[in-house]
Amino acid sequence: MTSPRFATLDDIRAAFADLPEPDAEAISAARARDAVLTKPPGALGRLEQVAAWMAGWQGSDRPRVASPQIVVFAANHGVAARGVSAFPPEVTAQMVANFEAGGAAINQLAQAFGARLDVHALDLDRPTEDMTEAPAMTEDDLAAAMSAGWAAVAEDSDLLICGEMGIGNTTAAAALAAALYGGRAEDWTGAGTGVAGKALEAKVATVKAALDRHEAALSDPLEALRRVGGRELAAMAGAILRARHGRVPVILDGFICTAAAAVLERARHGALDHALAGHLSAEGAHAALLDRLGKAPLVSLGLRLGEGSGAAVALGVVQAALACHSGMATFAEAGVSEG
Amino acid sequence: MTSPRFATLDDIRAAFADLPEPDAEAISAARARDAVLTKPPGALGRLEQVAAWMAGWQGSDRPRVASPQIVVFAANHGVAARGVSAFPPEVTAQMVANFEAGGAAINQLAQAFGARLDVHALDLDRPTEDMTEAPAMTEDDLAAAMSAGWAAVAEDSDLLICGEMGIGNTTAAAALAAALYGGRAEDWTGAGTGVAGKALEAKVATVKAALDRHEAALSDPLEALRRVGGRELAAMAGAILRARHGRVPVILDGFICTAAAAVLERARHGALDHALAGHLSAEGAHAALLDRLGKAPLVSLGLRLGEGSGAAVALGVVQAALACHSGMATFAEAGVSEG
Repeated sequence: MTSPRFATLDDIRAAFADLPEPDAEAISAARARDAVLTKPPGALGRLEQVAAWMAGWQGSDRPRVASPQIVVFAANHGVAARGVSAFPPEVTAQMVANFEAGGAAINQLAQAFGARLDVHALDLDRPTEDMTEAPAMTEDDLAAAMSAGWAAVAEDSDLLICGEMGIGNTTAAAALAAALYGGRAEDWTGAGTGVAGKALEAKVATVKAALDRHEAALSDPLEALRRVGGRELAAMAGAILRARHGRVPVILDGFICTAAAAVLERARHGALDHALAGHLSAEGAHAALLDRLGKAPLVSLGLRLGEGSGAAVALGVVQAALACHSGMATFAEAGVSEG
Repeated sequence: MTSPRFATLDDIRAAFADLPEPDAEAISAARARDAVLTKPPGALGRLEQVAAWMAGWQGSDRPRVASPQIVVFAANHGVAARGVSAFPPEVTAQMVANFEAGGAAINQLAQAFGARLDVHALDLDRPTEDMTEAPAMTEDDLAAAMSAGWAAVAEDSDLLICGEMGIGNTTAAAALAAALYGGRAEDWTGAGTGVAGKALEAKVATVKAALDRHEAALSDPLEALRRVGGRELAAMAGAILRARHGRVPVILDGFICTAAAAVLERARHGALDHALAGHLSAEGAHAALLDRLGKAPLVSLGLRLGEGSGAAVALGVVQAALACHSGMATFAEAGVSEG
């Protein structure tokens, strides 16, 4: 086991200093190739944009996804004791066992689209602190969780999806989104696994209490993550940051994943340029969050499961885009007259 | 070679008499299964609806797609001589050669999603009549083309996608949609492969001329198909009708495929219950056509290529839905607490 990537918050901040940019020449070359493929110009719509974007991050005019990786991070939340979820906290560990046994939705999707699936349970027996009473994590906790995310990205991964499981984590994500972008607790708090009525009101009050408790410290995105986030959110942020350093493109999942990713964008503008929005979740505030990030989702199918499931469905769209772009014949190769 | 399925229009009409319905028990059983899978109720959104719908047509509470089939029909249009396309008519045959050589978008998509791809060129050396001057097809032509579509559906096909290639066929589809649902030529006529300005005005005028020419006969959907359609549209209608008789679910492609399919719905209400809308095309009138059919597309990615390409991308979504539904563990199997 190598030493953790981050020991302190300063270590984390330093990792934002030298983010690689996409390969502009590869993008131009991909667009030039697209223009001579056997189809009317623009006829593959968003698929053409995805192919060019992938070309930039992979540095090739014919990008491919040979080793897609899905990493699911699981963690427990002190705030879950406040009854913010429709499910009891022990479900986090039960679902980790389900992931390991191959029985969850993300297992089926990983298999369907040929992705490697890794599951990392982060100190499940040690929930974060209740964020309405104290910072969810210490600085050591945050650095360890982000390091776990960093280390989880496989050496040969050429596309990354981060998923999560953690009873109570839409509550943390709502507080985090509000901390990063302002607005009221009720603007960012939704049904999660399925709370409504009085339970939803109590969830909103919990988010508000957390925001009030930590108000003075929330202008720093990493501090916001530490205080109202959770280990799986920190790990996703660490993995997505690691992907950027390796120029590995990322497909964002739903509200919780996007909130974790937004920490990076708020810490440094452009830090999510290597990430596209996989899907629009049915979790109410996801659309607003994607809007703040300026990202349009690939699919919108009413999913609200987490686990990376929405991004995994979008992986099929990315595979379709690359199959067309990299596999099609040109007008000259096929002897087809141009319009 | 067996004799054609249809010799006359009466033969075709007779094929609407005994359309099988979905298996209501299988739908109920699929919904009951969905309710105990390891996820919050409803958390897979549209994927859950797709799985239940597939269950009904396959008559199984755990539907699967083992042998998806894409059939592309190609034909030439007399009306193409009026310059309604950005491409010359010889491109139809050139693209058929490209399909056969594996170089087109649909070849890559079929491979990406594990679908069988068949290509049927329908009398390319014998374009239909110019619909502004005469019926596009004789009754024999129509019966032959619908028979070709009927025969193209493979015995073991468990999901069907119909695609098309035919320079000039958005002009035919626009006229057909207007014939089936009313409205002005300009409401249904779009850019196709990429016409704009004066060329688009001329395309609208061509559609209007065809509608005026055949006005008295357009209230019969099959007559509308014969007079302003084309062989590839008739073949798609025949294939989709054949699929219904075999309870094979269908994913509709874009504007041209949907216009062909709409002939069935207008001939008998409910005749497209076995078909779902794969995608929303960028071809302007597709949204209006899907709206008339009461079908919501699975994806909306700005495609406007035809060939079955949008439906093929949607096949990935259907595969995702079935993988989850049929492969996931139940709460009891996984030992996960229910909410």
